[in-house]
Amino acid sequence: MALGEFELIERILRRPQDAKRDRVVLGGGDDCALLQVQPGEQWAVSTDTLVEGRHFLSTVDPAALGHKALAVNLSDLAACGAQPRVCTLNLTLPRADEHWLQAFAHGFFGLADAHGIVLAGGDTTGGPLNIAVTVMGTLPVGAALLRSGAQAGDDLWVSHPMEDGLGIGDARLALEVFRGHTDLPPQGWRVVRRRMEWPAPRVALGMAMRGLAHAAIDLSDGLLGDLGHVLRASGVGAQLWWQALPRSTWVAQQNAQCQRDCLLAGGDDYELLLAAPASEREYVAAQAAACGVGLARIGCILQGSGVQVFDDEAAAREGRAAWPAALLPSGFDHFRSDEAQTRGMQT
Amino acid sequence: MALGEFELIERILRRPQDAKRDRVVLGGGDDCALLQVQPGEQWAVSTDTLVEGRHFLSTVDPAALGHKALAVNLSDLAACGAQPRVCTLNLTLPRADEHWLQAFAHGFFGLADAHGIVLAGGDTTGGPLNIAVTVMGTLPVGAALLRSGAQAGDDLWVSHPMEDGLGIGDARLALEVFRGHTDLPPQGWRVVRRRMEWPAPRVALGMAMRGLAHAAIDLSDGLLGDLGHVLRASGVGAQLWWQALPRSTWVAQQNAQCQRDCLLAGGDDYELLLAAPASEREYVAAQAAACGVGLARIGCILQGSGVQVFDDEAAAREGRAAWPAALLPSGFDHFRSDEAQTRGMQT
Repeated sequence: MALGEFELIERILRRPQDAKRDRVVLGGGDDCALLQVQPGEQWAVSTDTLVEGRHFLSTVDPAALGHKALAVNLSDLAACGAQPRVCTLNLTLPRADEHWLQAFAHGFFGLADAHGIVLAGGDTTGGPLNIAVTVMGTLPVGAALLRSGAQAGDDLWVSHPMEDGLGIGDARLALEVFRGHTDLPPQGWRVVRRRMEWPAPRVALGMAMRGLAHAAIDLSDGLLGDLGHVLRASGVGAQLWWQALPRSTWVAQQNAQCQRDCLLAGGDDYELLLAAPASEREYVAAQAAACGVGLARIGCILQGSGVQVFDDEAAAREGRAAWPAALLPSGFDHFRSDEAQTRGMQT
Repeated sequence: MALGEFELIERILRRPQDAKRDRVVLGGGDDCALLQVQPGEQWAVSTDTLVEGRHFLSTVDPAALGHKALAVNLSDLAACGAQPRVCTLNLTLPRADEHWLQAFAHGFFGLADAHGIVLAGGDTTGGPLNIAVTVMGTLPVGAALLRSGAQAGDDLWVSHPMEDGLGIGDARLALEVFRGHTDLPPQGWRVVRRRMEWPAPRVALGMAMRGLAHAAIDLSDGLLGDLGHVLRASGVGAQLWWQALPRSTWVAQQNAQCQRDCLLAGGDDYELLLAAPASEREYVAAQAAACGVGLARIGCILQGSGVQVFDDEAAAREGRAAWPAALLPSGFDHFRSDEAQTRGMQT
């Protein structure tokens, strides 16, 4: 479906009054809905669907699929700073193939056990392959990381694997190879394909950022798109420093256009984008190191609206010109307008 | 998929240890998973998927579909006695049709508002039509109605609409008409089709039965199948009284075989089947009346295992012979064995 169709669906299915009723503290719009279930504790709820041909190819390793179906949901909990608790699984399958199911279960439960989340229930039915996972996590009241808290002067950070030579945009590069738009040597192909199929949700980092980061979101739509969600929700602008964006050697070898697509508009990273006070810079970096996650300072939050991309921090500081809009990936050339970059009613 | 396939899936995806970890009091197997989230309160969680061609026809009124997608889940909360709180919706759509969506939303939110449940989040994506709803409700600790509490001597009750001339098996009769196996006059067709497409989850009745009923389940697979779940979980047997089963005038007009199929094996009723102490018979009946729901006493729980069907209570009391197995709907002729009548890992 096209963007306009998702906007239509969102308009019909999202009712502002639902966000204010009963125990719902915060309805869809942030990565999770927040529920007030008892004094002192909130529950964060998120759900995502994976559809064959849209979110994965029929040739995907079922273990990777089991992993990713849970990972994209855990990533939403991570973006709220919630501790994973329970999940449910709706599995629609064309047929029951034991080897496929065993592999799917290995991928799913391997990640579930690593994060201490329990499969509390589910429903299995026959039909075109469709995987819906709903996750629930807990938070102290008021501790949730939201999209709306970024403040002018904040540092802008993005997580990435601790391993050398990995960054954001690898999943997009894998997609470009799948599409035949570019080529990689076997070693590079293995690395970026693994980044696409086995994303690592940054749960520990999200929890460590409670009370520290002003705003957070997970990168599912691409850096510019997801940053845009934060900026609009917070009523601020930002500058990004191109050279500071963490990138793998495989992305760095691509031509300029492909690099910009991967780093600025590549989806499926499931890294965390954080806005945190500059006064806490060293502590933020130490927390990430303690979580075993790389964290790159890639820009800062400004008054105003929209994003400007500079070659590096020095270029911005010295007042050199920001990138012209024509250099931004298509779809983001009018980015400074308030035009929604909506991808659907996804919490 | 066939029954054997669902058993395979269940074996691979249900891990007994998950029911004992963290805050999960009771994993899949009952209508809901129960989570201990705070002292004094439990959350009941259930999820169901509806797939085109399997759970509904492409010609179904989208308002009815929106209603039913939520109703089948609310029915699981009702079977636990839980108060509905929040839900999530995963909607996979081949295209975004505004009229279809508006109608779907009317059906969904109409029922949600009637039961005070809030849509807290969701995910919409493109693909073959698939609707997954997850519901959460609350309960005082220890108040949940389970399948496992039925005791010898208990009355067996089944709910039905208060309106004259409606009972269980109407949804199955509508299916038989759809399949061309039988025929109805237009008035009857409208009535039974409405029972199939707009089921009324018995939420108020379930809540009223807390601390009163010993066991409960909602009728989704048919009376004999769902009663079998209760009997096996409780380690008891039961007798049913054929004449006491509440039936519509439209079911009553069918031939004997069709009546037995509709009343004993007709799924999709979403009525509650309850086992409650005979000493509370009048109070149970009064509670149902207060909820505006019909409640028929259709048999009793016995020591032992399996089900015997008698013409009526007098026939059972006077020691007349139970129905021969050949009269039971196919699939239930070996019902007294412990053979699982599994329909999948559904909570």
